[in-house]
Amino acid sequence: MSAPHTDVEKVEAANTSFYAALEQGDFELLSALWLSPSDVDVDETYHDPADAGVISCVHPGWPVLSGRGEVLRSYALIMANTDYIQFFLTDTHVSVTGDTALVTCTENILSGGPAPAEGDELGPLLGQLVVATNVFRRTAAGWKLWSHHASPVLAGSEEEDDEESPA
Amino acid sequence: MSAPHTDVEKVEAANTSFYAALEQGDFELLSALWLSPSDVDVDETYHDPADAGVISCVHPGWPVLSGRGEVLRSYALIMANTDYIQFFLTDTHVSVTGDTALVTCTENILSGGPAPAEGDELGPLLGQLVVATNVFRRTAAGWKLWSHHASPVLAGSEEEDDEESPA
Repeated sequence: MSAPHTDVEKVEAANTSFYAALEQGDFELLSALWLSPSDVDVDETYHDPADAGVISCVHPGWPVLSGRGEVLRSYALIMANTDYIQFFLTDTHVSVTGDTALVTCTENILSGGPAPAEGDELGPLLGQLVVATNVFRRTAAGWKLWSHHASPVLAGSEEEDDEESPA
Repeated sequence: MSAPHTDVEKVEAANTSFYAALEQGDFELLSALWLSPSDVDVDETYHDPADAGVISCVHPGWPVLSGRGEVLRSYALIMANTDYIQFFLTDTHVSVTGDTALVTCTENILSGGPAPAEGDELGPLLGQLVVATNVFRRTAAGWKLWSHHASPVLAGSEEEDDEESPA
């Protein structure tokens, strides 16, 4: 592939790594993929310093989580309650401008909860259709996640129809 | 407020205008608030030209819509099916880096559908709790929406609890 595609490829690789870290239950890798205050340029003077590099995360059906503390705690909790999870990504779309990248993708999820304490049955297996918008920022240590917003697809069709949901 | 807050204030104003356009059913204003190809800098050479300035939008429970055609059609449809809508925004958080801004907010929505064709009853009134991640880009014509992702809050509490949803 030619040079102009490099950033797009790097962002797509970072996006893939994010889901791989979740599949592997690799909390350290996951933590390293999220933007941290040390990644943020000191010459950013445009915004409120309190907001510098604050990450945000919305899991399907959840409210907004803000900051590394809340976000990473939620993943620790999810990993503790997930024995098995696999993401089949489709419709991945990457757009890069300057030092920011926007990724949209469909997460076709197959997951399993913890097995019941008694007996040797497996936990329940669950299929979910989720869409995600992931925003990455370029840092000295590579592209890092700034925002992840995932939500369940409740409509039956790919086409818009008479939905009740307005915004 | 002091000078460094200016960008944050402008982004917050653009975010407010977006919801005001929806409340007023002002399709022209709404269209103007979304990024258009003419807003995108010609010196952006980093990414796939096909992805330059492509907008994306996720309504609560919907799949991803991409490009002005799909996105604006969805709003025309929503406006046609909404007689009344009001957004009470809370927890608005704005972060600006370079020419990109990230906004998270909670949309406390009160909306009403079209009245029944017969009789003079009002349409059904509906309250919804929705969270949104909005990404804006700085353009010569002001801050424009690049991505909007909204999703229903299904959990009962602000705190993470034993949810089934993984990412």
